Amino acid sequence: VHLAVATLLEEVDRATLTVPQIAARAGVTPSTIYRRWGTLADLLADVAMRRMRLDGEPENTGSLKGDLLAWATQYLEEMSSDIGLAMMHDVLSASQPRALPAPCQCAAYTATQLQTIVERAHARNQPAPDVDALMDGIVAPIIYRTLFGATRTPISHVRKLVLRCVETAATGRARSKGA
Amino acid sequence: VHLAVATLLEEVDRATLTVPQIAARAGVTPSTIYRRWGTLADLLADVAMRRMRLDGEPENTGSLKGDLLAWATQYLEEMSSDIGLAMMHDVLSASQPRALPAPCQCAAYTATQLQTIVERAHARNQPAPDVDALMDGIVAPIIYRTLFGATRTPISHVRKLVLRCVETAATGRARSKGA
Repeated sequence: VHLAVATLLEEVDRATLTVPQIAARAGVTPSTIYRRWGTLADLLADVAMRRMRLDGEPENTGSLKGDLLAWATQYLEEMSSDIGLAMMHDVLSASQPRALPAPCQCAAYTATQLQTIVERAHARNQPAPDVDALMDGIVAPIIYRTLFGATRTPISHVRKLVLRCVETAATGRARSKGA
Repeated sequence: VHLAVATLLEEVDRATLTVPQIAARAGVTPSTIYRRWGTLADLLADVAMRRMRLDGEPENTGSLKGDLLAWATQYLEEMSSDIGLAMMHDVLSASQPRALPAPCQCAAYTATQLQTIVERAHARNQPAPDVDALMDGIVAPIIYRTLFGATRTPISHVRKLVLRCVETAATGRARSKGA
């Protein structure tokens, strides 16, 4: 079914995609899809989630700044691409606004990737902000700008966000060492 | 038509709302609505935009920190309420992902309110971050957490975001004065 959705999305307009169409392509009955996923929006969100997870481990460049720059640059590219944007809209359209399982999974997955980067920095004995600060300082601006912005966010801006986070972490450590 | 949508949204479930239903309530033909707004999603986005604009001027508390705290607290409350969340989803569902007129208007309106606060701070000769830094540092985390977060964002966290922005602005000025 996932594969059927992925191939159909390359052939037809997302807005015209229907559950019977997906069922026919996947060789299952529409009721199988309704039973497993509930609605078309939830199925599309599930496919989008799966795609986002294919990225694997964040690149290890040897420094926190390098890791974050590499990760954030790729994240901006993926999220602001047509596919990324469509995936985010699918994830946000799933289920009831207040229940929010797909968006939370999405944020949790992003947080896991940043956790990997932070743990690597600690292992190298480099000061690192906590994941929460990285979500607020890097992820949130990228997503907000992508969803609500009038223009594409330049990589130079992402660089500024990353440097601000890294510097704050360094200042924080210098301060606590001085005290 | 706006009034018809607002009253219908209090009576029926948003997911079941139709253009003919709105047209009947407003005493116009469905084709009038399609001509003016294109789709139901665009009409709902337009109604949502109008509602968000009713807030008026940000409160003047006498200090940048006070203004930002008052504004951000209200912003968090509005955006994380059931109505705010539904409005955001309407705004994000409007039109094609890449065209994005409603989300941009929404961000532009938020930027205008922050501009008012920044100009007030300059008039009082207080250091203030630029609007872009406030959008990244306060607005983006609030919206990202509201859309993708598993739990409600506490006011204490918004306070932390505001203080971080205000302190960065103060440090920046101290640094440039020293140089």
